[in-house]
Amino acid sequence: MDVYEAIRTKRAVRQFADKPIPQEALLKILDAGRLAGSSKNIQPWDFIVIRDRARLKALSECGPWAGHLAGAAVGIALVTGDWRERWPVAFDLGRAAQNMMLTAHEMGIGSVMANIYDMDKAHALLQLPEDKMCYAAISFGYPADPQKWQRPPRRGRKRALADVVHWETW
Amino acid sequence: MDVYEAIRTKRAVRQFADKPIPQEALLKILDAGRLAGSSKNIQPWDFIVIRDRARLKALSECGPWAGHLAGAAVGIALVTGDWRERWPVAFDLGRAAQNMMLTAHEMGIGSVMANIYDMDKAHALLQLPEDKMCYAAISFGYPADPQKWQRPPRRGRKRALADVVHWETW
Repeated sequence: MDVYEAIRTKRAVRQFADKPIPQEALLKILDAGRLAGSSKNIQPWDFIVIRDRARLKALSECGPWAGHLAGAAVGIALVTGDWRERWPVAFDLGRAAQNMMLTAHEMGIGSVMANIYDMDKAHALLQLPEDKMCYAAISFGYPADPQKWQRPPRRGRKRALADVVHWETW
Repeated sequence: MDVYEAIRTKRAVRQFADKPIPQEALLKILDAGRLAGSSKNIQPWDFIVIRDRARLKALSECGPWAGHLAGAAVGIALVTGDWRERWPVAFDLGRAAQNMMLTAHEMGIGSVMANIYDMDKAHALLQLPEDKMCYAAISFGYPADPQKWQRPPRRGRKRALADVVHWETW
């Protein structure tokens, strides 16, 4: 699958089949995240792979829209330092996450982001060091209904190019 | 080029050939950014395309490591609201930027990020509305020395997978 095609056809998948992700595919997803560029090459990320069902369920309760983690084949928690310190911390995590989700999509594996709201709970659950936090996690898994995710997106879901793009100045 | 291959072979390109980017390729890059997923589908981004040489030069002076913008075929300024308000603002911009840079790479077009430090200067230069800011920009262009960017990366530039990845807990 070429890059633009992957970007064009990627959907947020929230319901997953009861089918494990092969270790080789998982390592490729993680490697894609690891290989993202970052400001000053700081690579401000750690990835925690979660497959234990009870832990996934507990993590799914750390945000009001994180429920899909409970049914994911794999959850990857994105861990970093204080994101408010520097703009690139969250920005670079986004670059790594996008690499992971596009690589998964290319292998037929769906994904969706979850923001973590109860960060103290996630901190304890993941046994993080004092200076690290988990602000977001990604659910991965084969789609429960693959055909559903092959449909074209609903119209009007994305802002039009003419609205998003400006030429030379605002 | 498949997704993982694009991720694996992408390098930061800072020296560009004196060769314009065809409009079709530019629109594909912008579209790839537009199509990125975002938290609650807010799509918190606007992209300003800059090709005017004087404006590129002025933008290149808005950050200590932004000099490469002066020689880019195209600069794309990433514009959003206050990034400190919500974690996903910068994170989602990172997702969009990664889509753009991978799509460019697939077409043989190099890119590299620049953080904007002198935000007041960039605000005036890009004639932004009061509530918008430019925190970062991307240089795009055909590499000045294509062979240089086809070399494998230097060893030790990226943290090892075993260092980045944790299993179940930290």
